Amino acid sequence: MLQKKKNAVLVDGVILNGPIMDSKAGEKFVEEACKIIMEEVIQKADDVTEKVCEWQAPETLKQILDLEMRDTGESHQKLLQLCRDVIQYSVKTSHPRFFNQLYAGIDYYSLVARFITEALNPSVYTYEVSPVFLLVEEAVIKKMIEFIGWEEGDGIFNPGGSVSNMYAMNLARYKFCPEIKEKGLSGLPRLVLFTSEECHYSMKKAASFLGIGTENVYFIKTDERGKMIPEELEKQVQRARKEGSAPFLVCATAGTTVLGAFDPLDKIADICEKHGLWLHVDASWGGSALISRKHCRLLHGIHRADSVAWNPHKMLLAGIQCCALLVKDNSGLLKKCYSAKAAYLFQQDKFYDVSYDTGDKSIQCSRRPDAFKFWLMWKALGTTGLEERVNRALALARYLVEEIKKREGFQLLLESHKIQFLPKSAVFLCVKSTSFFCLYFQVAPIIKERMMKKGSMMLGYQPHQGKVNFFRQVVISPHVSREDMDFLLDEIELLAKDL
Amino acid sequence: MLQKKKNAVLVDGVILNGPIMDSKAGEKFVEEACKIIMEEVIQKADDVTEKVCEWQAPETLKQILDLEMRDTGESHQKLLQLCRDVIQYSVKTSHPRFFNQLYAGIDYYSLVARFITEALNPSVYTYEVSPVFLLVEEAVIKKMIEFIGWEEGDGIFNPGGSVSNMYAMNLARYKFCPEIKEKGLSGLPRLVLFTSEECHYSMKKAASFLGIGTENVYFIKTDERGKMIPEELEKQVQRARKEGSAPFLVCATAGTTVLGAFDPLDKIADICEKHGLWLHVDASWGGSALISRKHCRLLHGIHRADSVAWNPHKMLLAGIQCCALLVKDNSGLLKKCYSAKAAYLFQQDKFYDVSYDTGDKSIQCSRRPDAFKFWLMWKALGTTGLEERVNRALALARYLVEEIKKREGFQLLLESHKIQFLPKSAVFLCVKSTSFFCLYFQVAPIIKERMMKKGSMMLGYQPHQGKVNFFRQVVISPHVSREDMDFLLDEIELLAKDL
Repeated sequence: MLQKKKNAVLVDGVILNGPIMDSKAGEKFVEEACKIIMEEVIQKADDVTEKVCEWQAPETLKQILDLEMRDTGESHQKLLQLCRDVIQYSVKTSHPRFFNQLYAGIDYYSLVARFITEALNPSVYTYEVSPVFLLVEEAVIKKMIEFIGWEEGDGIFNPGGSVSNMYAMNLARYKFCPEIKEKGLSGLPRLVLFTSEECHYSMKKAASFLGIGTENVYFIKTDERGKMIPEELEKQVQRARKEGSAPFLVCATAGTTVLGAFDPLDKIADICEKHGLWLHVDASWGGSALISRKHCRLLHGIHRADSVAWNPHKMLLAGIQCCALLVKDNSGLLKKCYSAKAAYLFQQDKFYDVSYDTGDKSIQCSRRPDAFKFWLMWKALGTTGLEERVNRALALARYLVEEIKKREGFQLLLESHKIQFLPKSAVFLCVKSTSFFCLYFQVAPIIKERMMKKGSMMLGYQPHQGKVNFFRQVVISPHVSREDMDFLLDEIELLAKDL
Repeated sequence: MLQKKKNAVLVDGVILNGPIMDSKAGEKFVEEACKIIMEEVIQKADDVTEKVCEWQAPETLKQILDLEMRDTGESHQKLLQLCRDVIQYSVKTSHPRFFNQLYAGIDYYSLVARFITEALNPSVYTYEVSPVFLLVEEAVIKKMIEFIGWEEGDGIFNPGGSVSNMYAMNLARYKFCPEIKEKGLSGLPRLVLFTSEECHYSMKKAASFLGIGTENVYFIKTDERGKMIPEELEKQVQRARKEGSAPFLVCATAGTTVLGAFDPLDKIADICEKHGLWLHVDASWGGSALISRKHCRLLHGIHRADSVAWNPHKMLLAGIQCCALLVKDNSGLLKKCYSAKAAYLFQQDKFYDVSYDTGDKSIQCSRRPDAFKFWLMWKALGTTGLEERVNRALALARYLVEEIKKREGFQLLLESHKIQFLPKSAVFLCVKSTSFFCLYFQVAPIIKERMMKKGSMMLGYQPHQGKVNFFRQVVISPHVSREDMDFLLDEIELLAKDL
């Protein structure tokens, strides 16, 4: 509708006077939607009588949601209903009985930080557009480095631990041979890296993406608890040298994805030192144990690493995503490796100290302020509060282990005396079936289907190295209590009664 | 404090009964913080009497914010003050006079979608944990593909256009030689790719990260408007072939970062077809013009591309980050190229159609539901509403061009008859100084410093190909009107009066 205004200017048929957005209506919509979010998500987060999920098959859910985007927009009323539907049919990852992934629960402080950054919509690359968030990132990185035990260092927050692992791989390669940045890998000897056979799958993705090739990832055997065997690493490094390839990197894991194993960092560091290899520790899951004075010994030797990936969005509930790559080098290696010196963004003749413009350390251009949510949470809980979370999660895991041993129908995947060396909150159980291997294999998927359709809880399963499908229980959220552990076992028994 | 409960269970000194979080206090904190966000960010977004930024030098801001993370947590009262401080000293990117980057403004619908996803905290990889967001992503990708003009295709949302460009580069390489995924680049001939000298700096970052090497990016000359010259491309491809290297990819740009130029896609596609090269179009900025029936001709020929990067978080205000890589291939190339088949996540014996578990197409593991905010915004505005945004931004840019020509103290960087072929909302001006080249060079940084310290607006400057520092004006937000264009020119005059 054309509005009559003084000095109305028409260009290309568009009236240019005044804004075209109805701010008042927009604000009202935000307020109403926030009320729904508060009632339907946040206030229900600790309520175990709510469903974890309301399962619908893809084709049905498509019909319910009315996914089509049309020429004309919808009314606010219709949109608010859509928001309700989206919430209703989404998995409640903050539910106390969501045990499906390596993240869970809700942290109110992190959530507020995330609401703030969504409203401010910043991109973290230069001080002029992100003054607060750049300083916060610097402070958080400094603090994380303290917990690793380095005297100094550098770092950057990335969209995921997988990306952090890629950064580290590229950084190690750059350190090994800086010319690769300009010349590429063509014509060079085969670069080889080492990681355990229990490592995260991002190692393969990284090797492929970086042009190294998945065949040049040498997977090192692990012991029965899933930890890398240092003697096997030594052998493989020697084998690689004999082949004439160029070993440059060892990626140890602190908290493997499936078994939660912590590689023996100190012994691995000895080997890296001996052979002049970069040591990267993927502590995406296990890094948060550094906050606990009781459990930080699981990562003994981590101060000897050259780089560490650590995701506070997992065990510490900082919200997806919150992932740091931390680097021991403080001579500017990160920037040298990654910089492209874009003149339109990183002008050198600015009126302030441009060393605060840290965006050129990143492979991203726009980048989210992920450190901020961790910072606000840390400010709110203090180190002691974070430590309490880790300690409690581990204690709950130990409780579950003991309960599993008492129950007739369950079997621990790993023996109990080993469990206590096992990482924190990752506990494993497999449902004991009658006898037949094939049945065994099929039991977990059937129970999973039943729990999803009932919506009572969510728990992941997988096969593993010749072992049949078993459930993997992950304890993270401070909303979880022993009552939920008991429920978990009762519920599996109930769901599996006729199998 | 130990709470007396029935059957209290103590493990490792930790009471495991009941949750340890005070949900009521947490919810109250969220409510109070939301009120602050509403009042201080959202309701002020359209208010030009507010400052765009409240400049503080890094050292001063560090003192104000009290960045230190301590052992003990802070009170809610103190934390709420901290939230206020964070907001106060952050740049208001939604302010109608924030013209500094290729994003700006606020969209209320996208914002609501982002609040929902932050509260739900999903990760988008499997249907079981992200049913709604995976279906929404599929629907949005399908719709974007329609606007590109492909009959079918595939795609994925990524954390940034830079990352999308990397995806495309790796995908083109995989298509060229699938063995690279396993074998790597060692021992292969030099892979070479082509892009214009006006391309985004992520091309160099990508080539370096992927092990191709920055020297193997051949930069093609552009015409005076910043468009790639097809004849130069042809020459460079032939040169590369003669050198014995392996050309595999051309990256055209639809909307360059500095000049906003659109490469001639149709002619470039001819050359790609002739030489069997993958054509990627970096339409991170310009892709949104596809929504406008009036301006989509700027991307004429884009349907011939093999892949397209398009960021709705720029011109369409979907919120940082919202970036899709779209791929013409529909035979599963994306998945083949990227998959690592993690057994713990992508189980094949699930009870539903696992083709909906699209996470293995990604280099990330955890991934945010960035398509959702674009979807809700699209539902709210309709295609017509999105189109109106693009048309209005372009009309405002044209208005500004005409005004600049009328003003004594300003000079357009590009002649006006060329401007009209120029991309949408990117308009360029440089402040005309008296005579001396060196003065010229220094004028923009001084004016920038003054506007930052005053907080009246934010506008980026840069030098460019031998030209001295000039300002670059970007029009995006629907809150912007011709009054803001007039203000911009008046304000520069005012700030530069004594120079």
